[in-house]
Amino acid sequence: MENVAKLAETRAYQDVETQMRLLGRAARKAARALALSSGPTRDTALHAAASAIRAREADILAANAQDVADAVARGTAGSFIDRLTLNPARVEAMARGLEEIAALPDPLGRVLASFARPNGLRIDRVATPLGVVGVIYESRPNVTADAGGLCLKAGNVAILRGGSESARSTAAIHACLVEGLRAAGLPEAAISLVPTQDRAAVGHMLAGLDGAIDVIVPRGGKSLVARVQHEARVPVFAHLEGLVHIFIDRAADLEKAKTIVLNAKLRRTGICGAAETLLVDRAVAATHLAPLVTMLLDAKCEVRGDSATQAVDARVKPATEEDWRTEYLDAIISAKVVDGIDAAIEHIETYGSHHTDCIITEDKATAERFLSEVDSAIVLHNASTQFADGGEFGFGAEIGIATGRMHARGPVGVEQLTSFKYQVRGDGQVRA
Amino acid sequence: MENVAKLAETRAYQDVETQMRLLGRAARKAARALALSSGPTRDTALHAAASAIRAREADILAANAQDVADAVARGTAGSFIDRLTLNPARVEAMARGLEEIAALPDPLGRVLASFARPNGLRIDRVATPLGVVGVIYESRPNVTADAGGLCLKAGNVAILRGGSESARSTAAIHACLVEGLRAAGLPEAAISLVPTQDRAAVGHMLAGLDGAIDVIVPRGGKSLVARVQHEARVPVFAHLEGLVHIFIDRAADLEKAKTIVLNAKLRRTGICGAAETLLVDRAVAATHLAPLVTMLLDAKCEVRGDSATQAVDARVKPATEEDWRTEYLDAIISAKVVDGIDAAIEHIETYGSHHTDCIITEDKATAERFLSEVDSAIVLHNASTQFADGGEFGFGAEIGIATGRMHARGPVGVEQLTSFKYQVRGDGQVRA
Repeated sequence: MENVAKLAETRAYQDVETQMRLLGRAARKAARALALSSGPTRDTALHAAASAIRAREADILAANAQDVADAVARGTAGSFIDRLTLNPARVEAMARGLEEIAALPDPLGRVLASFARPNGLRIDRVATPLGVVGVIYESRPNVTADAGGLCLKAGNVAILRGGSESARSTAAIHACLVEGLRAAGLPEAAISLVPTQDRAAVGHMLAGLDGAIDVIVPRGGKSLVARVQHEARVPVFAHLEGLVHIFIDRAADLEKAKTIVLNAKLRRTGICGAAETLLVDRAVAATHLAPLVTMLLDAKCEVRGDSATQAVDARVKPATEEDWRTEYLDAIISAKVVDGIDAAIEHIETYGSHHTDCIITEDKATAERFLSEVDSAIVLHNASTQFADGGEFGFGAEIGIATGRMHARGPVGVEQLTSFKYQVRGDGQVRA
Repeated sequence: MENVAKLAETRAYQDVETQMRLLGRAARKAARALALSSGPTRDTALHAAASAIRAREADILAANAQDVADAVARGTAGSFIDRLTLNPARVEAMARGLEEIAALPDPLGRVLASFARPNGLRIDRVATPLGVVGVIYESRPNVTADAGGLCLKAGNVAILRGGSESARSTAAIHACLVEGLRAAGLPEAAISLVPTQDRAAVGHMLAGLDGAIDVIVPRGGKSLVARVQHEARVPVFAHLEGLVHIFIDRAADLEKAKTIVLNAKLRRTGICGAAETLLVDRAVAATHLAPLVTMLLDAKCEVRGDSATQAVDARVKPATEEDWRTEYLDAIISAKVVDGIDAAIEHIETYGSHHTDCIITEDKATAERFLSEVDSAIVLHNASTQFADGGEFGFGAEIGIATGRMHARGPVGVEQLTSFKYQVRGDGQVRA
């Protein structure tokens, strides 16, 4: 710890750009060491980090209490304070999360494809680490452990940049991760924390630190993600919003539709997989629309609908064009009657965010058409959109959900944090 | 053809930015249509385009003759003229190339992974198109057919931007591709040619055309690739250079080494998989270095070596630090004696370009270490580095070779031109 203090003192004399460049170089060097490390070694580090988090619970909570006190003193909003606050259960959840990541199969070295050529060459496509992942997040201190642990599992160096409001909590958690790395004999730079709260540091990360950063993962609100997507000079794994649709087809089972819509909209309203727009096929509007809308209203969900939807209940408010483009992340839903699956798909492609969309129908052919034609990262048939989650997909954990079409799409788990290379084994073959 | 002429006239009145924005919008719209098209429909278009190329051979050769005459009049270098020039055999090769692409299996709709969850959900990861691919190339007119055909096969729209020197040839070939699209009932914008030779058009493509372009593929010399990699705001599939190494391990079979080195360096010197640096293990320098160096010198390959290499033959020139960083693309090789596999890997990681690297050894364990530890897109054991090629990998055709770690790495064939989505099939499941 003395060395860390000395290093911090030295750093105070460096400008942000120099600090970040040095951080990038150390990360790139650590990435090479990490790529050569064994899966069990990385798992040892994850377990040791989990133990350190449990052993240092008091330190972490004390640091967090200071962060929270400062935030309260600044008059910060309650929802922000809630995300910032740790308690023994949340600390234990971080430790257990690291152990769960350790228990996942090693994503590196997997043979993704294997083929032999007529000339006798054997070619394997083998999973390798991505390299260095920059993670930019806001108030939740637990992202430190989650993101650091996931990157480590996949053999990637993580460069973590948390919000200034949670700086003390983040540093306390990061110290535990470093303890884990040290216990496994891995370089401490394998999970690096940006040593300054200067906002310019984020700009340097988005520029890629002279090629040291391979990919950026923003974890936070829409404004953070928008800034990152706009400014980044390196690839970004993220989604700007989850403008999630549920389409009730003419062959939908009403009871199934009710159960799924209620869960998809209201189980948790603040997550990206929460439904935001309900589309009902005109062919069953007479029988299905009123029960669904009444159910939502009775469950204290505001409904903003087109004229057909307004007609079924006086409590429905009129929807504006803006509503079709709005991710509420709240107990509000927009609703509209559409002329069958073609109009539903057209609406989704026009207003959607290519994140998660769902069809409720008993007609298999219609379901297959929807699953095939809607161009979203996740398309569901007869299941709640709140399953849009790496844990629910069986990925163990996720660093986020991506809507891009390159490399990672949908939940980004350890597998998506890997790259690959081709290993070619021959016996003297030359090219004709 | 009249409509095309009219359109071209209209375009002359638009500024480059407007032209490019309209092109991008048309491409994005065509991408949606293409994503819904069937594999056989796209193959029909490829076959029809091949027929059109054969039927219009005279037009294509006439257009090309004009391009060549202009280039000769400008005093262009002979190697450039060679790349620019078409003849009946090269026209036939383009047509056959399109038919070979058509014969490849449909890369879309493939189930890449499939898993069931304990709650009964069935989740499939299914291959989908990437979207819109911008291809920027130089003098070779045949890239028009190759790149357009590969993109079409994978359901992607191609926006093609050839060099101004080959503008007439490119337009004549592009007309055949459009004829193929029309024959299959696919939108003509599915393979778009940038309608202006204004250099600003490339800048607009690199900026992504308001999100219309998903990925850029540069096909050409190092300066083109460097500009694209530096300026692009969208992902790029490319390699800047192929600084390819061959390491002769202490357990190398000398005869095998000689055959492979000769082929890897001299079969064709101008391709990215050609070897540029020979590393010889000090343990076998006494027996292996002289025969390899003499063989290369006798085959008219210039050798630039360290002092140990210079000592074996008076014809060896001294290598400078710059030589270890140079991709010659010519009958020149740099050569060095290294202290075993560790020093070899250190040299490759320090000076290499992560493209293709090779070890010659009869020791399996050493080979496996090299294949595992060298972080290049393609790592070979006992085979010529000139196998770094999509066709040789069995991919049928390639749009290029990528050294990035994201999404596409190594030869980029139709499979690497796809993305994926998750299709989730349920029976009323909701999240607890």
